[in-house]
Amino acid sequence: MEKVSAAVVGATGYTGAELLRLLLGHPRVEVTKVVGHSRAGEPVGKVLPNLRGLLTGDVDAFDADAIAASSKVAFCALPHGASASIVDVLRRLGVVVFDLSADFRLKDLDVYRTWYGDHPAPERHAEAVYGLVELHRDELRGTDLVAVPGCYPTASTLALAPLLRAGLVESTGIVIDAKSGVSGAGRTPTGSTHLPESSEGIRAYKTGGTHRHVPEIEQELSLAAGGVVRLVFTPHLVPMTRGILVTAYAQAKGASTAEACTRAARELYQDSPSVVVLDPGENPDTLWVRGSNRVFISYTRNDSTGHVIAQAAIDNLVKGAAGSAIQAANVALGLEETAGLRTPGVFPA
Amino acid sequence: MEKVSAAVVGATGYTGAELLRLLLGHPRVEVTKVVGHSRAGEPVGKVLPNLRGLLTGDVDAFDADAIAASSKVAFCALPHGASASIVDVLRRLGVVVFDLSADFRLKDLDVYRTWYGDHPAPERHAEAVYGLVELHRDELRGTDLVAVPGCYPTASTLALAPLLRAGLVESTGIVIDAKSGVSGAGRTPTGSTHLPESSEGIRAYKTGGTHRHVPEIEQELSLAAGGVVRLVFTPHLVPMTRGILVTAYAQAKGASTAEACTRAARELYQDSPSVVVLDPGENPDTLWVRGSNRVFISYTRNDSTGHVIAQAAIDNLVKGAAGSAIQAANVALGLEETAGLRTPGVFPA
Amino acid sequence: MEKVSAAVVGATGYTGAELLRLLLGHPRVEVTKVVGHSRAGEPVGKVLPNLRGLLTGDVDAFDADAIAASSKVAFCALPHGASASIVDVLRRLGVVVFDLSADFRLKDLDVYRTWYGDHPAPERHAEAVYGLVELHRDELRGTDLVAVPGCYPTASTLALAPLLRAGLVESTGIVIDAKSGVSGAGRTPTGSTHLPESSEGIRAYKTGGTHRHVPEIEQELSLAAGGVVRLVFTPHLVPMTRGILVTAYAQAKGASTAEACTRAARELYQDSPSVVVLDPGENPDTLWVRGSNRVFISYTRNDSTGHVIAQAAIDNLVKGAAGSAIQAANVALGLEETAGLRTPGVFPA
Amino acid sequence: MEKVSAAVVGATGYTGAELLRLLLGHPRVEVTKVVGHSRAGEPVGKVLPNLRGLLTGDVDAFDADAIAASSKVAFCALPHGASASIVDVLRRLGVVVFDLSADFRLKDLDVYRTWYGDHPAPERHAEAVYGLVELHRDELRGTDLVAVPGCYPTASTLALAPLLRAGLVESTGIVIDAKSGVSGAGRTPTGSTHLPESSEGIRAYKTGGTHRHVPEIEQELSLAAGGVVRLVFTPHLVPMTRGILVTAYAQAKGASTAEACTRAARELYQDSPSVVVLDPGENPDTLWVRGSNRVFISYTRNDSTGHVIAQAAIDNLVKGAAGSAIQAANVALGLEETAGLRTPGVFPA
Repeated sequence: MEKVSAAVVGATGYTGAELLRLLLGHPRVEVTKVVGHSRAGEPVGKVLPNLRGLLTGDVDAFDADAIAASSKVAFCALPHGASASIVDVLRRLGVVVFDLSADFRLKDLDVYRTWYGDHPAPERHAEAVYGLVELHRDELRGTDLVAVPGCYPTASTLALAPLLRAGLVESTGIVIDAKSGVSGAGRTPTGSTHLPESSEGIRAYKTGGTHRHVPEIEQELSLAAGGVVRLVFTPHLVPMTRGILVTAYAQAKGASTAEACTRAARELYQDSPSVVVLDPGENPDTLWVRGSNRVFISYTRNDSTGHVIAQAAIDNLVKGAAGSAIQAANVALGLEETAGLRTPGVFPA
Repeated sequence: MEKVSAAVVGATGYTGAELLRLLLGHPRVEVTKVVGHSRAGEPVGKVLPNLRGLLTGDVDAFDADAIAASSKVAFCALPHGASASIVDVLRRLGVVVFDLSADFRLKDLDVYRTWYGDHPAPERHAEAVYGLVELHRDELRGTDLVAVPGCYPTASTLALAPLLRAGLVESTGIVIDAKSGVSGAGRTPTGSTHLPESSEGIRAYKTGGTHRHVPEIEQELSLAAGGVVRLVFTPHLVPMTRGILVTAYAQAKGASTAEACTRAARELYQDSPSVVVLDPGENPDTLWVRGSNRVFISYTRNDSTGHVIAQAAIDNLVKGAAGSAIQAANVALGLEETAGLRTPGVFPA
Repeated sequence: MEKVSAAVVGATGYTGAELLRLLLGHPRVEVTKVVGHSRAGEPVGKVLPNLRGLLTGDVDAFDADAIAASSKVAFCALPHGASASIVDVLRRLGVVVFDLSADFRLKDLDVYRTWYGDHPAPERHAEAVYGLVELHRDELRGTDLVAVPGCYPTASTLALAPLLRAGLVESTGIVIDAKSGVSGAGRTPTGSTHLPESSEGIRAYKTGGTHRHVPEIEQELSLAAGGVVRLVFTPHLVPMTRGILVTAYAQAKGASTAEACTRAARELYQDSPSVVVLDPGENPDTLWVRGSNRVFISYTRNDSTGHVIAQAAIDNLVKGAAGSAIQAANVALGLEETAGLRTPGVFPA
Repeated sequence: MEKVSAAVVGATGYTGAELLRLLLGHPRVEVTKVVGHSRAGEPVGKVLPNLRGLLTGDVDAFDADAIAASSKVAFCALPHGASASIVDVLRRLGVVVFDLSADFRLKDLDVYRTWYGDHPAPERHAEAVYGLVELHRDELRGTDLVAVPGCYPTASTLALAPLLRAGLVESTGIVIDAKSGVSGAGRTPTGSTHLPESSEGIRAYKTGGTHRHVPEIEQELSLAAGGVVRLVFTPHLVPMTRGILVTAYAQAKGASTAEACTRAARELYQDSPSVVVLDPGENPDTLWVRGSNRVFISYTRNDSTGHVIAQAAIDNLVKGAAGSAIQAANVALGLEETAGLRTPGVFPA
């Protein structure tokens, strides 16, 4: 069977590395270009030592024409702002783009402007489809530009959307307490990712609603609720490499039980092979999804206050980024949704 | 200056080990007995290798008379249920007891019964003072039986009490999302503390209000609020050894700002040397308090929903257990509150 | 293409878990039985949460006839001693067995007896082939009983065999300093694998030549050297989950350079796709092979003393156990050597 | 009792932080100046969050006159090269200096030049005493300039010196395999200390005798052996924050037993309160010394090859740096050797 030719742009960061790792095992995709800005000219196996001996050749500098000549699709793992213009150039040359930056995720350009500044390619904006397959599968088929969701929004939305769609919880007063492994901060070393100052401490950051994933989560949950949702979102940095655990708190509507929430999620995700909805009372562990594109979700009720506690665990670099991009690509390109993504998590870590 | 003679009962677990470590550096206390059930007869330096060469002699089996003969006070780090009867025996012999179990923390015996079963020494119950020095300092002076607070209740109460006392937040709908290092689970190895299944994963446990610290937190926050408080409490196990971070969410009353919350806490804790109240917008890290008896607290406001986010970071084995016990003992015995507790955290970890 | 039916016996430990994870992605093998002693009757997805939703059904109790009826081959991940008798029963029923225990690794039954006691199935002993594919590939083709090598012996032998075969180093005075992640100690929680007592400490164990892998390493290196090799082997427990790094020291014969050692290894392993021989001066990191069946090797020379330093990094659960077993099975069964084993390491961890 | 006034220069790195932490608990020393280059002007409690509320005031820029005016002694925790000139200036002003850099450790200026380049203050060189108290206690009394030993040399020398002095092992062919926590690499974040690329991997670095601690170890062991010692030294980076474990291999002279080695060490260190010599067959763990100035040493024999295995475990930031400096200062200043250094390790981590 002919393979789809694919370029990975921004290949030398962690998300790019995961794209390459997963695409190397994809039965229907062939990596034709490995593009990286800062380390162009170096052998791939030097920059990404796990690929040494498996992916030969050097990291290339960005060259839109060379990409278009060699690749039907491109996965772009670039910082927001930098991404939109490159996506625009690639789209003009006919390349189908899966963009892992935040540049095309927010439907409302005013909201984008508030959080990120002027959009670098506003005319391209309407073309993009939000790539959370479980909730936007039909829109994604045949799409040429996909905005791959952020890591926190993926876990938060998958946990809460079933409850809001089914009217099982109030849409006000939602609290999302999120915990992420350090790889979510990227590959550039900083004080807060320096092992001696991160391996035995936990702390919140960007508290008070200042994290840029807030508008993205609110957008998707508003869609699910059929009305404007405003929420509290507190991310934490946890002393581990991979994984996001979202613990979300919502006021139950009337007697909504954990069982009812579980049923609603199982129904919504019945054709979603990446999602496992646990039984009420079970708690997902990020350890169970490391290296895989899977998400484990569960629901519990706190009877004394009438809250529902919704949890979701993902690998931030896979279901929260690279794996999600490939899943969306599979749907967009008409391949099997789980192609290249069937591997279980690596257990134990 | 004469030293206070002290026995440590239950010395071979982590809390007992911390009691010994801290008491060895205490200028006014002398350890006269090291008592442990399961490892009686072994040299202390074998059971607690960090003390090898510093504390000679063997771990003794429990013998109330021997303790009373040698020690004015006893620190009891025993499991709940087992503790109360031993405390009772020691008290009959005139020993001043600092009990680190849960047995004397709950004021309401009915609540105790609901969570723990019949109380083994109900007649001793009324004698105990809850040992959170920052909120019960005056009651503690001269006391003969102190119920040392639990780790989660310490962090949760210190963060939220100032807000509830000052009427800055609503007393309903409070959500406490707590994260603990693995040492909180004790020294007995289990599947969930086995390094390969804990070092790279985070998960919640005892969700839905089933953790035994819930009634203790509610008791202390009800006291602060002047009315019954019911709340959501979700503990998480974090892949690190020490530390508790509490991230608590409460609905602000009107325009209560982070600044107002910070002021209220600084006022309440102005004579409490263990407490550091950070500036609004700062976030405490458990890394900053490792090995110390200190607590770092901060407040942030989430404007879009009107929540106050209260955070507290402690070392669960020190301010959450052994250090707190010694602090209470200092107050009860008329010593300087910070005697033996002035060491900063070990940084980096 | 028809698939080979395979049972995994001892599936609930870490090696068994890895066998299942890797076999699920094997294009030519189908898992037909999941056998585990201690947790028989429980759903596989409960015992191995990473497989939840991917491998349905329960863990079965051991039943040799049921295995023989359903499975052409069996991978046995059982403790030594327990393994040999089960292997014997399965072989009588015609099942091709890949035994991950130590029971059939030592060629000399007297040596076995010295280290392990009486052999439970001595008559089966001569049938087994030592399964280190890189050095025993030809013997393995068509074999019905394979003794899969131990984790330390795999790394130690692959690093040193090229030097001893090529006569580049002396065969006396070899020192092997080995470092292993904690998963090597198995899935049963113990004090030394309890996170609080393992996550921030490193220590040696079984020093002085008392580790049972010593005779296995000596056997394979004696074979390579063409004469009896006796050596020092010191294993260490490192605060991480996976990985073995071997740092071995051997006296260079005359002017043997790092380059000469590197060439010898590249020649010996030229048809071995799992082996990457780094350039002189490079140092392998266990981080680069996590989750993969690959081994990274390198050589350096210490000029002032004339030592060669040989290093090898593997994932102890994959190339050190489950992956190695599958690699040997591929060769024994006439499949492609890397079938099911082509995935790169998961990077970052 | 009057306290000795002390400046800490280079206070914002990890060694400086440890100096401050330990000096704050020192009964006879008072910190009078906190000097740091890169973060001058910031509050100490911002730069070193564990000291927040305990040490007020700002980090000062370096000013030799201000230091001399306020401080009798200075602890200099600066990079080699940068340190010597600053030490020279302070000495001219009469300040007693404890220098934690490598600048005054090597007795032979030619050797210094080979490894570090021209010495910035050669005329000051002869004045310095090597500060390993256990082996140079008498020389240190009354000294005005102390070269505090490096971390690896401390552990390596303390483990091997007793054997070489007593003639229990050969002085040729010694192999030192050393393992260090990541804090040894300093506070500046780099790729190899970035948590995602260090927390689950172990690797050697500067193999083949290229680490700058080699000449320092060889100097001290030559002194012990009474003749030139050349050795192999391989440092490894271990995924933890603190701790060095040295595993050293030496050929036994004749029938030197582990017991004989143990006796020799106990005799040599009988008046050294920081040293614990374990029984033969015991293995020290870095976990046991975290945060303390202690060193645990042990000896084992490998009978089949006649090697002695000498091990030592220290906290690289304490006995390997800041604690060692204070211990040397205590001796130089005529204080009690263990003043401010009696605290046990923090256990568990």
